Amino acid sequence: MQVLHSVNELRAAVARLPRPLGLVPTMGALHAGHMALMTASTADNRSTVASIYVNPSQFGPREDLSRYPRTLEADLAKLEAAAADLVFAPETPEMYPPGFVSWVSVEGPPAERLEAERRPGHFRGVATIVAKLLLQVGPDVAYFGQKDAQQLAVVRRVVTDLNIPVRIVGVPTVREPDGLALSSRNVYLSPAERRAATVLSRALRTAQARYAAGERDPEAILQSMAAEFRAEPLADLDYADLADPDTFQPAVQLDDRTLALVACRIGATRLIDNTALGGTHS
Amino acid sequence: MQVLHSVNELRAAVARLPRPLGLVPTMGALHAGHMALMTASTADNRSTVASIYVNPSQFGPREDLSRYPRTLEADLAKLEAAAADLVFAPETPEMYPPGFVSWVSVEGPPAERLEAERRPGHFRGVATIVAKLLLQVGPDVAYFGQKDAQQLAVVRRVVTDLNIPVRIVGVPTVREPDGLALSSRNVYLSPAERRAATVLSRALRTAQARYAAGERDPEAILQSMAAEFRAEPLADLDYADLADPDTFQPAVQLDDRTLALVACRIGATRLIDNTALGGTHS
Repeated sequence: MQVLHSVNELRAAVARLPRPLGLVPTMGALHAGHMALMTASTADNRSTVASIYVNPSQFGPREDLSRYPRTLEADLAKLEAAAADLVFAPETPEMYPPGFVSWVSVEGPPAERLEAERRPGHFRGVATIVAKLLLQVGPDVAYFGQKDAQQLAVVRRVVTDLNIPVRIVGVPTVREPDGLALSSRNVYLSPAERRAATVLSRALRTAQARYAAGERDPEAILQSMAAEFRAEPLADLDYADLADPDTFQPAVQLDDRTLALVACRIGATRLIDNTALGGTHS
Repeated sequence: MQVLHSVNELRAAVARLPRPLGLVPTMGALHAGHMALMTASTADNRSTVASIYVNPSQFGPREDLSRYPRTLEADLAKLEAAAADLVFAPETPEMYPPGFVSWVSVEGPPAERLEAERRPGHFRGVATIVAKLLLQVGPDVAYFGQKDAQQLAVVRRVVTDLNIPVRIVGVPTVREPDGLALSSRNVYLSPAERRAATVLSRALRTAQARYAAGERDPEAILQSMAAEFRAEPLADLDYADLADPDTFQPAVQLDDRTLALVACRIGATRLIDNTALGGTHS
Protein backbone atom coordinates (compact mmCIF):
# COMPACT_ATOMS: atom_id res chain seq x y z
CA MET A 1 0.00 0.00 0.00
CA GLN A 2 1.50 3.30 -1.11
CA VAL A 3 1.13 6.43 1.06
CA LEU A 4 1.46 9.61 -0.99
CA HIS A 5 1.41 13.25 -0.02
CA SER A 6 1.47 15.24 -3.28
CA VAL A 7 -1.09 15.54 -6.06
CA ASN A 8 1.53 14.90 -8.74
CA GLU A 9 2.69 11.64 -7.14
CA LEU A 10 -0.95 10.70 -6.63
CA ARG A 11 -1.90 11.23 -10.29
CA ALA A 12 1.09 9.20 -11.49
CA ALA A 13 0.28 6.33 -9.12
CA VAL A 14 -3.46 6.36 -9.89
CA ALA A 15 -2.68 6.12 -13.62
CA ARG A 16 -1.16 2.68 -12.92
CA LEU A 17 -4.10 1.31 -10.89
CA PRO A 18 -6.55 -1.11 -12.55
CA ARG A 19 -10.06 0.24 -13.13
CA PRO A 20 -12.73 0.57 -11.91
CA LEU A 21 -11.33 2.71 -9.10
CA GLY A 22 -13.12 3.57 -5.85
CA LEU A 23 -12.33 6.55 -3.61
CA VAL A 24 -12.99 6.60 0.13
CA PRO A 25 -12.44 10.17 1.35
CA THR A 26 -11.90 10.46 5.12
CA MET A 27 -10.62 12.84 7.77
CA GLY A 28 -8.79 9.92 9.45
CA ALA A 29 -9.59 8.82 13.03
CA LEU A 30 -10.95 5.76 11.31
CA HIS A 31 -13.63 3.57 12.84
CA ALA A 32 -15.89 0.75 11.65
CA GLY A 33 -18.01 3.25 9.71
CA HIS A 34 -15.04 4.11 7.52
CA MET A 35 -14.24 0.42 7.22
CA ALA A 36 -17.74 -0.12 5.81
CA LEU A 37 -16.89 2.41 3.09
CA MET A 38 -13.69 0.47 2.37
CA THR A 39 -15.60 -2.82 2.24
CA ALA A 40 -18.10 -1.33 -0.21
CA SER A 41 -15.33 0.04 -2.40
CA THR A 42 -13.16 -3.07 -2.47
CA ALA A 43 -16.23 -5.20 -3.24
CA ASP A 44 -17.22 -3.00 -6.21
CA ASN A 45 -13.85 -2.02 -7.70
CA ARG A 46 -10.52 -3.42 -8.81
CA SER A 47 -8.65 -0.64 -6.94
CA THR A 48 -9.39 1.59 -3.96
CA VAL A 49 -7.78 4.88 -2.97
CA ALA A 50 -8.44 6.21 0.55
CA SER A 51 -7.69 9.81 1.46
CA ILE A 52 -6.93 11.15 4.91
CA TYR A 53 -7.17 14.91 5.28
CA VAL A 54 -8.60 16.99 8.10
CA ASN A 55 -9.95 19.83 5.97
CA PRO A 56 -9.71 23.13 7.87
CA SER A 57 -12.16 24.95 5.60
CA GLN A 58 -15.11 22.86 6.75
CA PHE A 59 -14.60 23.75 10.42
CA GLY A 60 -16.07 26.95 11.82
CA PRO A 61 -13.91 29.27 13.96
CA ARG A 62 -15.45 27.92 17.17
CA GLU A 63 -15.38 24.29 16.12
CA ASP A 64 -13.04 21.43 17.01
CA LEU A 65 -10.39 21.62 14.25
CA SER A 66 -7.45 21.77 16.65
CA ARG A 67 -8.62 18.90 18.86
CA TYR A 68 -10.06 16.74 16.07
CA PRO A 69 -8.51 13.27 16.64
CA ARG A 70 -5.44 12.50 14.52
CA THR A 71 -4.39 8.86 14.50
CA LEU A 72 -2.39 8.45 11.28
CA GLU A 73 -0.37 5.34 12.19
CA ALA A 74 -3.43 3.42 13.34
CA ASP A 75 -5.40 4.67 10.31
CA LEU A 76 -2.76 3.39 7.89
CA ALA A 77 -2.73 -0.01 9.57
CA LYS A 78 -6.53 -0.23 9.23
CA LEU A 79 -6.45 0.82 5.57
CA GLU A 80 -3.72 -1.71 4.83
CA ALA A 81 -5.83 -4.42 6.48
CA ALA A 82 -8.83 -3.23 4.45
CA ALA A 83 -6.86 -3.70 1.20
CA ALA A 84 -6.50 -0.06 0.17
CA ASP A 85 -4.15 0.16 -2.80
CA LEU A 86 -3.10 3.72 -2.09
CA VAL A 87 -3.54 6.30 0.65
CA PHE A 88 -3.45 9.98 -0.17
CA ALA A 89 -2.53 11.97 2.94
CA PRO A 90 -1.75 15.54 1.88
CA GLU A 91 -0.81 18.43 4.12
CA THR A 92 -2.66 21.75 3.91
CA PRO A 93 -0.07 23.58 1.72
CA GLU A 94 -0.69 20.90 -0.93
CA MET A 95 -4.48 21.32 -0.79
CA TYR A 96 -4.67 25.09 -0.26
CA PRO A 97 -1.42 26.52 -1.66
CA PRO A 98 -0.68 30.25 -1.49
CA GLY A 99 -3.03 32.15 -3.81
CA PHE A 100 -5.84 29.61 -3.48
CA VAL A 101 -9.13 31.52 -3.96
CA SER A 102 -11.58 29.23 -5.82
CA TRP A 103 -14.48 27.74 -3.92
CA VAL A 104 -17.41 25.50 -4.73
CA SER A 105 -20.56 26.79 -3.05
CA VAL A 106 -23.96 25.17 -2.89
CA GLU A 107 -26.27 28.17 -2.78
CA GLY A 108 -29.62 26.50 -2.18
CA PRO A 109 -31.19 23.17 -1.22
CA PRO A 110 -29.85 20.80 0.08
CA ALA A 111 -27.38 23.27 1.63
CA GLU A 112 -30.01 25.18 3.56
CA ARG A 113 -31.45 24.54 7.03
CA LEU A 114 -30.07 22.13 9.66
CA GLU A 115 -26.27 21.74 9.38
CA ALA A 116 -26.05 24.56 6.80
CA GLU A 117 -27.68 26.97 9.24
CA ARG A 118 -25.74 25.80 12.30
CA ARG A 119 -22.35 25.63 10.58
CA PRO A 120 -21.95 28.64 8.24
CA GLY A 121 -19.33 27.86 5.61
CA HIS A 122 -19.24 24.16 6.47
CA PHE A 123 -20.72 22.91 3.21
CA ARG A 124 -18.63 25.33 1.15
CA GLY A 125 -15.59 23.69 2.72
CA VAL A 126 -16.99 20.21 2.16
CA ALA A 127 -18.04 20.90 -1.45
CA THR A 128 -14.65 22.40 -2.30
CA ILE A 129 -12.51 19.67 -0.75
CA VAL A 130 -14.66 16.88 -2.16
CA ALA A 131 -14.54 18.42 -5.65
CA LYS A 132 -10.76 18.72 -5.32
CA LEU A 133 -10.31 15.13 -4.14
CA LEU A 134 -12.56 13.81 -6.90
CA LEU A 135 -10.59 15.76 -9.52
CA GLN A 136 -7.22 14.83 -8.01
CA VAL A 137 -7.96 11.09 -7.87
CA GLY A 138 -10.42 10.74 -10.76
CA PRO A 139 -12.26 7.71 -9.33
CA ASP A 140 -15.14 5.90 -11.03
CA VAL A 141 -17.06 5.73 -7.74
CA ALA A 142 -16.75 7.53 -4.40
CA TYR A 143 -18.18 6.36 -1.08
CA PHE A 144 -19.69 8.52 1.68
CA GLY A 145 -21.38 7.59 4.94
CA GLN A 146 -25.13 8.06 5.27
CA LYS A 147 -24.49 9.24 8.84
CA ASP A 148 -23.66 12.66 7.36
CA ALA A 149 -26.83 12.62 5.29
CA GLN A 150 -26.93 16.30 4.42
CA GLN A 151 -23.26 16.20 3.40
CA LEU A 152 -24.07 13.23 1.15
CA ALA A 153 -26.91 15.19 -0.47
CA VAL A 154 -24.62 18.21 -0.94
CA VAL A 155 -21.93 16.05 -2.54
CA ARG A 156 -24.49 14.50 -4.91
CA ARG A 157 -25.74 17.99 -5.80
CA VAL A 158 -22.22 19.27 -6.58
CA VAL A 159 -21.35 16.22 -8.67
CA THR A 160 -24.56 16.61 -10.67
CA ASP A 161 -24.36 20.40 -11.06
CA LEU A 162 -20.67 20.58 -12.01
CA ASN A 163 -20.80 17.39 -14.13
CA ILE A 164 -18.00 15.69 -12.20
CA PRO A 165 -17.71 12.29 -13.90
CA VAL A 166 -18.11 9.99 -10.88
CA ARG A 167 -20.81 7.90 -9.25
CA ILE A 168 -21.55 8.69 -5.58
CA VAL A 169 -22.55 5.84 -3.26
CA GLY A 170 -23.98 6.32 0.24
CA VAL A 171 -23.09 3.60 2.71
CA PRO A 172 -25.37 2.77 5.70
CA THR A 173 -24.40 4.07 9.12
CA VAL A 174 -22.55 1.66 11.40
CA ARG A 175 -23.75 1.64 15.02
CA GLU A 176 -22.54 0.47 18.41
CA PRO A 177 -24.60 -2.36 19.92
CA ASP A 178 -26.61 0.20 21.94
CA GLY A 179 -27.47 2.19 18.80
CA LEU A 180 -24.94 5.05 18.93
CA ALA A 181 -23.79 5.91 15.41
CA LEU A 182 -20.04 5.58 15.01
CA SER A 183 -18.33 8.97 14.80
CA SER A 184 -14.75 10.10 15.21
CA ARG A 185 -16.14 12.59 17.74
CA ASN A 186 -17.44 9.88 20.09
CA VAL A 187 -13.97 9.79 21.70
CA TYR A 188 -14.70 13.22 23.19
CA LEU A 189 -17.47 11.76 25.41
CA SER A 190 -17.01 11.02 29.12
CA PRO A 191 -18.50 7.69 30.30
CA ALA A 192 -21.68 9.44 31.48
CA GLU A 193 -21.95 11.40 28.25
CA ARG A 194 -21.35 8.22 26.27
CA ARG A 195 -24.36 6.62 28.01
CA ALA A 196 -26.50 9.72 27.37
CA ALA A 197 -25.51 9.75 23.69
CA THR A 198 -27.84 6.86 22.93
CA VAL A 199 -30.61 9.48 23.03
CA LEU A 200 -29.98 10.30 19.36
CA SER A 201 -30.65 6.80 18.06
CA ARG A 202 -33.51 6.32 20.55
CA ALA A 203 -35.21 9.43 19.15
CA LEU A 204 -34.75 8.09 15.62
CA ARG A 205 -36.15 4.67 16.58
CA THR A 206 -39.14 6.40 18.14
CA ALA A 207 -39.75 8.28 14.88
CA GLN A 208 -39.51 5.04 12.90
CA ALA A 209 -41.83 3.24 15.32
CA ARG A 210 -44.51 5.93 15.11
CA TYR A 211 -44.25 5.97 11.32
CA ALA A 212 -44.47 2.16 11.21
CA ALA A 213 -47.58 2.38 13.41
CA GLY A 214 -49.22 4.59 10.77
CA GLU A 215 -48.52 8.09 12.06
CA ARG A 216 -48.29 10.48 9.09
CA ASP A 217 -48.42 13.86 10.87
CA PRO A 218 -44.87 15.33 10.85
CA GLU A 219 -45.60 17.44 13.94
CA ALA A 220 -46.64 14.41 15.99
CA ILE A 221 -43.45 12.55 15.11
CA LEU A 222 -41.27 15.61 15.79
CA GLN A 223 -42.89 15.93 19.23
CA SER A 224 -42.08 12.32 20.03
CA MET A 225 -38.45 12.84 19.01
CA ALA A 226 -38.14 15.98 21.13
CA ALA A 227 -39.66 14.15 24.12
CA GLU A 228 -36.78 11.66 24.07
CA PHE A 229 -34.33 14.54 24.43
CA ARG A 230 -36.32 16.15 27.25
CA ALA A 231 -35.90 12.87 29.14
CA GLU A 232 -32.11 13.01 28.84
CA PRO A 233 -30.67 15.77 31.07
CA LEU A 234 -27.12 15.57 29.65
CA ALA A 235 -28.33 16.19 26.07
CA ASP A 236 -29.10 19.65 24.73
CA LEU A 237 -31.30 19.27 21.62
CA ASP A 238 -30.20 21.33 18.63
CA TYR A 239 -32.77 20.08 16.13
CA ALA A 240 -35.14 17.20 15.48
CA ASP A 241 -36.32 17.29 11.89
CA LEU A 242 -38.10 15.42 9.12
CA ALA A 243 -36.68 16.23 5.70
CA ASP A 244 -36.62 15.20 2.07
CA PRO A 245 -33.42 13.15 1.53
CA ASP A 246 -32.47 15.01 -1.67
CA THR A 247 -33.42 18.63 -0.98
CA PHE A 248 -33.40 18.65 2.84
CA GLN A 249 -36.55 20.76 2.73
CA PRO A 250 -39.11 20.01 5.50
CA ALA A 251 -41.01 16.82 4.77
CA VAL A 252 -44.68 17.56 4.22
CA GLN A 253 -45.85 14.15 3.02
CA LEU A 254 -43.97 11.45 4.89
CA ASP A 255 -42.80 8.34 3.07
CA ASP A 256 -40.26 5.55 3.60
CA ARG A 257 -37.40 7.69 2.22
CA THR A 258 -38.15 10.70 4.47
CA LEU A 259 -35.23 11.30 6.80
CA ALA A 260 -35.59 11.77 10.54
CA LEU A 261 -32.61 13.84 11.67
CA VAL A 262 -31.34 14.87 15.08
CA ALA A 263 -28.48 17.01 16.37
CA CYS A 264 -27.61 17.74 19.98
CA ARG A 265 -24.83 18.79 22.27
CA ILE A 266 -23.68 16.49 25.02
CA GLY A 267 -21.26 18.46 27.13
CA ALA A 268 -18.86 20.10 24.66
CA THR A 269 -19.52 17.54 21.93
CA ARG A 270 -21.94 18.05 19.09
CA LEU A 271 -23.39 14.84 17.65
CA ILE A 272 -25.75 14.20 14.71
CA ASP A 273 -27.63 11.16 13.48
CA ASN A 274 -30.38 10.28 11.02
CA THR A 275 -32.39 7.46 9.56
CA ALA A 276 -34.94 6.92 6.84
CA LEU A 277 -38.41 6.56 8.38
CA GLY A 278 -38.96 3.34 6.46
CA GLY A 279 -35.40 2.05 6.98
CA THR A 280 -34.40 -0.84 9.16
CA HIS A 281 -32.56 0.52 12.13
CA SER A 282 -29.50 -1.66 12.74
CA MET B 1 -18.66 16.72 -37.74
CA GLN B 2 -21.19 15.75 -35.09
CA VAL B 3 -23.38 18.39 -33.45
CA LEU B 4 -24.62 17.26 -30.04
CA HIS B 5 -26.91 18.88 -27.50
CA SER B 6 -26.87 16.66 -24.41
CA VAL B 7 -24.08 15.85 -21.95
CA ASN B 8 -24.77 12.12 -22.17
CA GLU B 9 -24.44 12.07 -25.97
CA LEU B 10 -21.35 14.25 -25.66
CA ARG B 11 -19.61 11.92 -23.20
CA ALA B 12 -20.35 8.88 -25.36
CA ALA B 13 -19.02 10.60 -28.49
CA VAL B 14 -15.92 12.00 -26.76
CA ALA B 15 -15.03 8.52 -25.51
CA ARG B 16 -14.60 7.48 -29.17
CA LEU B 17 -12.34 10.43 -30.15
CA PRO B 18 -8.58 9.88 -30.47
CA ARG B 19 -6.42 11.60 -27.85
CA PRO B 20 -5.01 14.11 -27.18
CA LEU B 21 -8.24 16.10 -27.27
CA GLY B 22 -8.52 19.90 -27.44
CA LEU B 23 -11.54 21.94 -26.33
CA VAL B 24 -12.43 25.34 -27.79
CA PRO B 25 -15.23 26.83 -25.66
CA THR B 26 -17.14 29.65 -27.37
CA MET B 27 -20.37 31.63 -27.13
CA GLY B 28 -20.79 31.37 -30.92
CA ALA B 29 -20.86 34.45 -33.19
CA LEU B 30 -17.54 33.10 -34.37
CA HIS B 31 -14.88 35.34 -35.91
CA ALA B 32 -11.23 34.95 -36.81
CA GLY B 33 -10.24 35.09 -33.13
CA HIS B 34 -12.18 31.89 -32.48
CA MET B 35 -10.69 30.40 -35.62
CA ALA B 36 -7.21 31.04 -34.17
CA LEU B 37 -8.26 28.94 -31.15
CA MET B 38 -9.38 26.18 -33.54
CA THR B 39 -6.10 26.36 -35.46
CA ALA B 40 -4.11 26.08 -32.23
CA SER B 41 -6.17 23.10 -31.09
CA THR B 42 -6.11 21.17 -34.34
CA ALA B 43 -2.34 21.75 -34.62
CA ASP B 44 -1.73 20.37 -31.10
CA ASN B 45 -4.27 17.57 -30.85
CA ARG B 46 -5.66 14.54 -32.67
CA SER B 47 -9.24 15.65 -31.94
CA THR B 48 -10.96 18.96 -31.24
CA VAL B 49 -14.32 19.63 -29.62
CA ALA B 50 -15.81 23.12 -29.93
CA SER B 51 -18.66 24.25 -27.71
CA ILE B 52 -21.21 26.94 -28.49
CA TYR B 53 -23.21 28.19 -25.53
CA VAL B 54 -24.27 31.73 -24.63
CA ASN B 55 -24.01 31.36 -20.87
CA PRO B 56 -26.68 33.51 -19.17
CA SER B 57 -24.98 33.39 -15.76
CA GLN B 58 -22.03 35.48 -16.93
CA PHE B 59 -24.22 38.37 -18.09
CA GLY B 60 -25.34 41.01 -15.61
CA PRO B 61 -29.00 42.08 -15.48
CA ARG B 62 -28.26 45.21 -17.54
CA GLU B 63 -25.95 43.52 -20.02
CA ASP B 64 -26.52 42.33 -23.56
CA LEU B 65 -27.64 38.70 -23.09
CA SER B 66 -30.82 39.08 -25.13
CA ARG B 67 -29.17 40.85 -28.05
CA TYR B 68 -25.89 38.91 -28.00
CA PRO B 69 -25.40 37.77 -31.64
CA ARG B 70 -26.56 34.20 -32.37
CA THR B 71 -25.37 32.81 -35.70
CA LEU B 72 -25.51 29.04 -35.25
CA GLU B 73 -25.69 28.00 -38.91
CA ALA B 74 -22.73 30.16 -39.92
CA ASP B 75 -20.82 29.05 -36.80
CA LEU B 76 -21.26 25.37 -37.65
CA ALA B 77 -20.03 25.95 -41.20
CA LYS B 78 -16.92 27.69 -39.85
CA LEU B 79 -16.22 24.92 -37.34
CA GLU B 80 -16.67 22.27 -40.02
CA ALA B 81 -14.18 24.15 -42.23
CA ALA B 82 -11.81 24.39 -39.25
CA ALA B 83 -11.89 20.59 -38.82
CA ALA B 84 -13.75 20.38 -35.54
CA ASP B 85 -14.59 16.74 -34.82
CA LEU B 86 -17.55 17.53 -32.66
CA VAL B 87 -19.61 20.57 -31.67
CA PHE B 88 -21.39 20.67 -28.33
CA ALA B 89 -24.29 23.13 -28.49
CA PRO B 90 -26.43 22.66 -25.40
CA GLU B 91 -29.53 24.61 -24.42
CA THR B 92 -29.86 26.17 -20.98
CA PRO B 93 -32.01 23.39 -19.41
CA GLU B 94 -29.13 20.99 -20.12
CA MET B 95 -26.54 23.25 -18.49
CA TYR B 96 -28.65 24.63 -15.62
CA PRO B 97 -31.36 22.03 -14.98
CA PRO B 98 -34.02 22.62 -12.30
CA GLY B 99 -32.45 22.43 -8.85
CA PHE B 100 -29.04 23.66 -10.03
CA VAL B 101 -27.41 25.48 -7.09
CA SER B 102 -23.64 24.79 -7.20
CA TRP B 103 -21.30 27.58 -8.25
CA VAL B 104 -17.58 28.01 -8.63
CA SER B 105 -16.50 31.38 -7.23
CA VAL B 106 -13.09 32.98 -7.38
CA GLU B 107 -13.00 34.99 -4.18
CA GLY B 108 -9.77 36.91 -4.62
CA PRO B 109 -7.12 37.81 -7.18
CA PRO B 110 -7.31 37.61 -10.18
CA ALA B 111 -11.09 38.06 -9.80
CA GLU B 112 -10.82 41.49 -8.19
CA ARG B 113 -10.63 44.95 -9.81
CA LEU B 114 -11.32 45.78 -13.48
CA GLU B 115 -13.89 43.41 -15.02
CA ALA B 116 -14.66 41.82 -11.62
CA GLU B 117 -15.60 45.22 -10.23
CA ARG B 118 -17.55 46.38 -13.28
CA ARG B 119 -19.41 43.14 -13.85
CA PRO B 120 -20.50 41.68 -10.47
CA GLY B 121 -21.12 37.96 -10.82
CA HIS B 122 -19.50 37.78 -14.25
CA PHE B 123 -16.51 35.65 -13.22
CA ARG B 124 -18.68 33.40 -11.05
CA GLY B 125 -20.66 32.66 -14.21
CA VAL B 126 -17.50 32.18 -16.26
CA ALA B 127 -15.78 29.99 -13.65
CA THR B 128 -18.86 27.80 -13.26
CA ILE B 129 -19.57 27.28 -16.96
CA VAL B 130 -15.91 26.68 -17.81
CA ALA B 131 -15.58 24.14 -14.98
CA LYS B 132 -18.74 22.43 -16.24
CA LEU B 133 -17.55 22.34 -19.87
CA LEU B 134 -14.13 21.02 -18.85
CA LEU B 135 -15.74 18.27 -16.76
CA GLN B 136 -18.34 17.46 -19.42
CA VAL B 137 -15.80 17.14 -22.25
CA GLY B 138 -12.69 16.05 -20.32
CA PRO B 139 -10.17 17.54 -22.77
CA ASP B 140 -6.40 17.33 -22.42
CA VAL B 141 -6.02 21.00 -23.39
CA ALA B 142 -8.45 23.93 -23.59
CA TYR B 143 -7.92 27.13 -25.57
CA PHE B 144 -8.93 30.66 -24.56
CA GLY B 145 -8.31 34.02 -26.20
CA GLN B 146 -5.86 36.43 -24.62
CA LYS B 147 -8.27 39.22 -25.54
CA ASP B 148 -10.22 38.33 -22.39
CA ALA B 149 -7.03 38.38 -20.32
CA GLN B 150 -8.66 38.55 -16.90
CA GLN B 151 -11.01 35.70 -17.84
CA LEU B 152 -7.98 33.66 -18.91
CA ALA B 153 -6.30 34.34 -15.55
CA VAL B 154 -9.51 33.39 -13.70
CA VAL B 155 -9.80 30.14 -15.67
CA ARG B 156 -6.17 29.26 -14.92
CA ARG B 157 -6.80 29.99 -11.23
CA VAL B 158 -9.90 27.74 -11.10
CA VAL B 159 -8.14 24.89 -12.91
CA THR B 160 -5.20 25.10 -10.50
CA ASP B 161 -7.26 25.52 -7.34
CA LEU B 162 -9.81 22.79 -8.08
CA ASN B 163 -7.23 20.44 -9.63
CA ILE B 164 -9.11 20.10 -12.90
CA PRO B 165 -6.89 17.80 -14.97
CA VAL B 166 -6.43 19.96 -18.09
CA ARG B 167 -3.83 22.28 -19.58
CA ILE B 168 -5.00 25.84 -20.37
CA VAL B 169 -3.54 27.63 -23.40
CA GLY B 170 -3.96 31.35 -24.11
CA VAL B 171 -4.06 32.26 -27.80
CA PRO B 172 -2.97 35.72 -29.03
CA THR B 173 -5.63 38.26 -29.90
CA VAL B 174 -6.56 38.56 -33.57
CA ARG B 175 -6.95 42.16 -34.83
CA GLU B 176 -8.46 43.98 -37.78
CA PRO B 177 -5.91 45.70 -40.05
CA ASP B 178 -6.49 48.98 -38.17
CA GLY B 179 -5.78 47.35 -34.80
CA LEU B 180 -9.29 46.72 -33.45
CA ALA B 181 -9.35 43.44 -31.55
CA LEU B 182 -11.90 41.01 -32.97
CA SER B 183 -14.95 40.65 -30.75
CA SER B 184 -18.42 39.28 -31.29
CA ARG B 185 -19.64 42.63 -29.95
CA ASN B 186 -18.03 44.65 -32.78
CA VAL B 187 -21.20 44.04 -34.85
CA TYR B 188 -23.04 46.41 -32.49
CA LEU B 189 -20.95 49.39 -33.69
CA SER B 190 -22.24 51.99 -36.17
CA PRO B 191 -19.73 53.00 -38.88
CA ALA B 192 -18.67 56.07 -36.89
CA GLU B 193 -18.37 54.04 -33.69
CA ARG B 194 -16.38 51.39 -35.56
CA ARG B 195 -13.87 54.09 -36.58
CA ALA B 196 -13.70 55.43 -33.02
CA ALA B 197 -13.12 51.91 -31.63
CA THR B 198 -9.51 51.94 -32.79
CA VAL B 199 -8.87 54.10 -29.72
CA LEU B 200 -8.47 50.97 -27.58
CA SER B 201 -5.60 49.48 -29.57
CA ARG B 202 -4.08 52.96 -30.08
CA ALA B 203 -3.96 53.44 -26.31
CA LEU B 204 -2.29 50.05 -25.92
CA ARG B 205 0.26 50.82 -28.64
CA THR B 206 1.04 54.08 -26.87
CA ALA B 207 1.66 52.19 -23.62
CA GLN B 208 3.95 49.75 -25.41
CA ALA B 209 5.81 52.57 -27.14
CA ARG B 210 6.46 54.46 -23.92
CA TYR B 211 7.59 51.23 -22.21
CA ALA B 212 9.87 50.42 -25.18
CA ALA B 213 11.32 53.94 -24.87
CA GLY B 214 12.32 53.18 -21.29
CA GLU B 215 9.42 54.62 -19.29
CA ARG B 216 9.00 52.61 -16.06
CA ASP B 217 6.64 54.87 -14.11
CA PRO B 218 3.16 53.25 -14.20
CA GLU B 219 1.45 56.60 -13.64
CA ALA B 220 3.14 58.18 -16.67
CA ILE B 221 2.05 55.34 -18.93
CA LEU B 222 -1.50 55.38 -17.54
CA GLN B 223 -1.69 59.11 -18.29
CA SER B 224 -0.63 58.51 -21.88
CA MET B 225 -3.29 55.84 -22.31
CA ALA B 226 -6.00 58.10 -20.85
CA ALA B 227 -4.91 60.92 -23.16
CA GLU B 228 -5.75 58.78 -26.21
CA PHE B 229 -9.29 58.39 -24.92
CA ARG B 230 -9.69 62.10 -24.21
CA ALA B 231 -8.89 62.67 -27.89
CA GLU B 232 -11.75 60.39 -29.00
CA PRO B 233 -15.14 62.03 -28.31
CA LEU B 234 -17.21 58.90 -29.11
CA ALA B 235 -15.35 56.80 -26.51
CA ASP B 236 -16.15 56.91 -22.81
CA LEU B 237 -13.17 55.49 -20.90
CA ASP B 238 -14.04 52.95 -18.22
CA TYR B 239 -10.49 52.05 -17.18
CA ALA B 240 -6.90 52.15 -18.34
CA ASP B 241 -4.75 49.91 -16.18
CA LEU B 242 -1.40 48.20 -15.77
CA ALA B 243 -1.67 44.86 -14.03
CA ASP B 244 0.14 41.65 -13.21
CA PRO B 245 -0.98 39.02 -15.77
CA ASP B 246 -1.56 36.32 -13.12
CA THR B 247 -3.06 38.20 -10.17
CA PHE B 248 -4.43 41.31 -11.92
CA GLN B 249 -3.16 43.39 -9.04
CA PRO B 250 -1.82 46.83 -10.01
CA ALA B 251 1.63 46.59 -11.57
CA VAL B 252 4.20 48.30 -9.38
CA GLN B 253 7.37 47.20 -11.16
CA LEU B 254 6.74 47.10 -14.89
CA ASP B 255 8.19 44.29 -17.00
CA ASP B 256 7.59 42.71 -20.41
CA ARG B 257 4.75 40.53 -19.07
CA THR B 258 2.89 43.43 -17.42
CA LEU B 259 -0.51 43.86 -19.07
CA ALA B 260 -1.83 47.18 -20.30
CA LEU B 261 -5.62 46.94 -20.20
CA VAL B 262 -8.38 49.25 -21.40
CA ALA B 263 -12.16 49.22 -21.30
CA CYS B 264 -14.53 51.82 -22.70
CA ARG B 265 -18.04 52.40 -23.90
CA ILE B 266 -18.65 53.50 -27.46
CA GLY B 267 -22.33 54.34 -27.72
CA ALA B 268 -24.17 51.40 -26.11
CA THR B 269 -21.28 48.98 -26.69
CA ARG B 270 -18.69 48.10 -24.08
CA LEU B 271 -15.32 47.00 -25.48
CA ILE B 272 -12.14 45.76 -23.80
CA ASP B 273 -8.61 45.12 -25.02
CA ASN B 274 -5.16 44.43 -23.59
CA THR B 275 -1.56 43.70 -24.48
CA ALA B 276 1.65 42.76 -22.73
CA LEU B 277 3.92 45.81 -22.48
CA GLY B 278 6.77 43.83 -24.01
CA GLY B 279 4.60 42.06 -26.57
CA THR B 280 4.59 42.65 -30.28
CA HIS B 281 1.38 44.37 -31.22
CA SER B 282 0.06 42.74 -34.37
